[in-house]
Amino acid sequence: MPTNLEISRGTVRKPLLDVAADMGIGPHLVEPYGNAAAKLSLDAIDELADRPKARYVVVSSLTPTPLGEGKTTTTVGLGQGFAHLGKRAVIAIRQSSMGPTFGIKGGAAGGGYAQVVPMETVNLHLTGDLHAVTGAHNLLAAMVDNHLHKGNALGLDPWSITWRRVLDVNDRDLRQIVTGLGGRQDGIPRQTGFDITAASEVMAILALCSSLRDLRNRLGRIVVGYDSDGEAVTAEQLKAAGAMCVQLREAVKPNLLQSVEQTPVLIHCGPFGNIAHGNSSVVADLVGIRCGDYLVTEAGFGADMGAERFFNIKCRASGLVPDAAVVVATVRAMKVHSGRYRVVAGRPLPDEMVQESPDDVYAGAGNLRRQLANIRAHGVTPVVAVNAFPGDFDSEHRAILDIAAEEGVRAAVSTHAAKGGKGAAELADAVAAACEQPAEFTHLYPTDLPLAEKIDVVARRMYGADGIDLSPLARRQLDTYTRCGFDALPVCIAKTHLSLSDDPSRKGAPTGWRLPVREVRASAGAGFVYPICGDMRTMPGLSSHPAAEHIDIDESGQVVGLA
Amino acid sequence: MPTNLEISRGTVRKPLLDVAADMGIGPHLVEPYGNAAAKLSLDAIDELADRPKARYVVVSSLTPTPLGEGKTTTTVGLGQGFAHLGKRAVIAIRQSSMGPTFGIKGGAAGGGYAQVVPMETVNLHLTGDLHAVTGAHNLLAAMVDNHLHKGNALGLDPWSITWRRVLDVNDRDLRQIVTGLGGRQDGIPRQTGFDITAASEVMAILALCSSLRDLRNRLGRIVVGYDSDGEAVTAEQLKAAGAMCVQLREAVKPNLLQSVEQTPVLIHCGPFGNIAHGNSSVVADLVGIRCGDYLVTEAGFGADMGAERFFNIKCRASGLVPDAAVVVATVRAMKVHSGRYRVVAGRPLPDEMVQESPDDVYAGAGNLRRQLANIRAHGVTPVVAVNAFPGDFDSEHRAILDIAAEEGVRAAVSTHAAKGGKGAAELADAVAAACEQPAEFTHLYPTDLPLAEKIDVVARRMYGADGIDLSPLARRQLDTYTRCGFDALPVCIAKTHLSLSDDPSRKGAPTGWRLPVREVRASAGAGFVYPICGDMRTMPGLSSHPAAEHIDIDESGQVVGLA
Repeated sequence: MPTNLEISRGTVRKPLLDVAADMGIGPHLVEPYGNAAAKLSLDAIDELADRPKARYVVVSSLTPTPLGEGKTTTTVGLGQGFAHLGKRAVIAIRQSSMGPTFGIKGGAAGGGYAQVVPMETVNLHLTGDLHAVTGAHNLLAAMVDNHLHKGNALGLDPWSITWRRVLDVNDRDLRQIVTGLGGRQDGIPRQTGFDITAASEVMAILALCSSLRDLRNRLGRIVVGYDSDGEAVTAEQLKAAGAMCVQLREAVKPNLLQSVEQTPVLIHCGPFGNIAHGNSSVVADLVGIRCGDYLVTEAGFGADMGAERFFNIKCRASGLVPDAAVVVATVRAMKVHSGRYRVVAGRPLPDEMVQESPDDVYAGAGNLRRQLANIRAHGVTPVVAVNAFPGDFDSEHRAILDIAAEEGVRAAVSTHAAKGGKGAAELADAVAAACEQPAEFTHLYPTDLPLAEKIDVVARRMYGADGIDLSPLARRQLDTYTRCGFDALPVCIAKTHLSLSDDPSRKGAPTGWRLPVREVRASAGAGFVYPICGDMRTMPGLSSHPAAEHIDIDESGQVVGLA
Repeated sequence: MPTNLEISRGTVRKPLLDVAADMGIGPHLVEPYGNAAAKLSLDAIDELADRPKARYVVVSSLTPTPLGEGKTTTTVGLGQGFAHLGKRAVIAIRQSSMGPTFGIKGGAAGGGYAQVVPMETVNLHLTGDLHAVTGAHNLLAAMVDNHLHKGNALGLDPWSITWRRVLDVNDRDLRQIVTGLGGRQDGIPRQTGFDITAASEVMAILALCSSLRDLRNRLGRIVVGYDSDGEAVTAEQLKAAGAMCVQLREAVKPNLLQSVEQTPVLIHCGPFGNIAHGNSSVVADLVGIRCGDYLVTEAGFGADMGAERFFNIKCRASGLVPDAAVVVATVRAMKVHSGRYRVVAGRPLPDEMVQESPDDVYAGAGNLRRQLANIRAHGVTPVVAVNAFPGDFDSEHRAILDIAAEEGVRAAVSTHAAKGGKGAAELADAVAAACEQPAEFTHLYPTDLPLAEKIDVVARRMYGADGIDLSPLARRQLDTYTRCGFDALPVCIAKTHLSLSDDPSRKGAPTGWRLPVREVRASAGAGFVYPICGDMRTMPGLSSHPAAEHIDIDESGQVVGLA
């Protein structure tokens, strides 16, 4: 099979104005950005408001291995698959971060014959949205330190400042730094650090806002720290929110590209799944929902994390109601959830793991069952997508289909990576049927529940914990946020994505454990409170041989080495 | 008179494909980026190579005040002026940096009726080139620290590392920082800092390269530090140059916009004038030189700095030969060079300075005469452009014209800011005549002169110094660079732009002084060695009330407060 880059290069792309026309979007709403991407005007939201709504499908997964289970690939494949049923679909996914592109191998635009093209555009700057987030975020950071330097009229407590800086690069040396060294003219020394741009609250805000005005208002609500009375100090008070919004006025428009089969793809925003909600943008979905029979989007990590946040944070912000949820399962992840194997990113799978063993697959059922229950807990109909890999055995696929049948859930084996949309047609058919099944979408908790109870509900009902243990620090912080009026916000629990529990080594569906909450932070602008359960890395590092070492241009100026 | 933003908003823009067609550039070479800017393919350079060359005009100035003397405005005005003589001109200028846009007031796209439109696009992200420079620069920085972290196979001496990080924001607290704090997994503690993106060597490289391949090779030659034997360690050795080039593959294409009078404007690259050559890109000029009767470009600061570097660094890289050089003079700068007045950015001019006083103007002649001689020293014909301001008196303009006449130099009063190209028609006429005057372009020094002698030649012949004084550190550094083979590079002297001397308070044309060289740095990739004479700030700070505080979107989503 050719490489992703070769497939991408070999694709004949449709002019983007024609792709937009397929969505019923006129050229006046399309702004080309280079030859491979375009931005759509937010005017589309109002202009298309009278059209019927597409069925809204979210793609999630069982608890993934460190290798990832091909959720984006499945999302793109499923979107393409609908065309083979004579239906029109729009795909809405996240923008990949450039840091990891040059860090670890692996594009973020799907793979094989289920990818967004051209992959160079998708994986590099795209239309610059991440850079705009970097710029807006760091302008606020500079204005925070400038405020201290110029007399600190707002009485901001320097030790309370939570607003760090961001860059879209994997750079471990920036995690913990001291700024403001030098002399009187060079600022005030302070310990702080950089996160990767995707982890910026500005990114989460961009992904959750529903209009330019909403973006402006949310930016103003960002809390950078507290004054000596414990009152929140905001970006609005620092007079930074307007300039931040101006920097983001193009970035707020969704990007239009296409898949290898010319299916329309909206790529917009990529909030970090570790500490934010990990879903693509609300505005892209508000446009896409009016542009076809199906809108297929993706939620990061397993259903306990990305899908839970999709239901309780993103759908709350958008007002949209999902019709079905796909849970991606792979043979290798099922085997890992048996507890018998361990996989490590960058190393080949253990020899025994690639032998035919439907038993091992079946032994991992607990995790899949829990994730299906997590979808149903929201009144949404799940569908199992078996993402087929070349080394899989039919008996192993059947084991997954058996588990789905035991749960009364539709399921299909999908071969989109190798065969494109045709390979996902059976999955699309199952999803179409699921969308027609009567169901009533419900949030997991009402927002007026106290914050600690919201965390407890998610921990028990999604993760299978027996309860939560708040550290004294976390208790104090919850008190602060309640006093500041953030108690009506939903929660976005930051824990490992590699286990239903807080311990990445515990596979399957762990029971008999409690979720320890070390600390709690607030993204008041984005509109959620996020408890930290475990060590959350917000700035990746580079390996001994980063992917960047192999990426170059060839003699003809073409990109090589992008995997 | 309406504000710059109002004029920009009121402009009817021509479709960019039509602007390109006016330049004889077909649509296959044009990639739209949004509705207001486009990129031109570098294929244009070869495709247009058979066309006759335009006359090549560089716009410089007398030694400016801290307020700036309207060099960009004059460049745009002059470009527009040629149309009023029935000639076709192309304008090529630098991209403004976003840091200062939110720091101090003042767009960088010209002003009044001699500006590039729309000003929001010009002053904000444009097509993202600065962000690509930030990304490429910081990827190399991460790979440097990662190399140390992973065992330092190249034996890079951590204390010799000169490669810092960059961001396009005014942030004084990032000037001096310590990175790599935390623990074993968070890097190795090291003192370093951030410069503004415009000060990145990557920006200088992008501005000086003549093709994508040349860009790739120059990136490989970047020196990040030295090993324990004193040998240079390069980006090529760190295997970073390929990935950096991939990040820059769109940024290397010049951006096409238009002026308020629909004159084609190429905006490309903005290397910091303080420590780099401060000229727009070679590739933009290689395209523009084939697209009209005149190509008008701009060189930063006074003729002793920007124009000298234009002649000896940029023209060496491009192989292009200038036909005339405009020296912009203003009444206020002439008065300052009398030594009788002092102006401060952000404060109104002293009362006595705005009184009619041709005497004061004439008393500042020394500086203008020296800058005209600096142009002539390169075998280029100068023209004086009196950039008229509303409060000027005719008698004061006449004083400048008199000085020009005494020097045997053509001159014209230009009112482009108030009247557009029509106000610059007389200037355009003088420039056209100067272009036809026989002259022979010559570099100031041959590249095989030893580095110290090159510095000495520039100091004596351009600045009027009696010689140079090298510090012991500077001597050692010159030895190192000579040993490393950088002695064949031209020099780019970093000194204040506010005086011909190294002391910003000395106005006019100071004599009886020597230039102290504190240290010397090398931009081996960009291809110049830069002696540091005085305190060169490479990361600006914010004021007590930065411009960002007033920039916002209004209810209709329009940008307000951009000045």
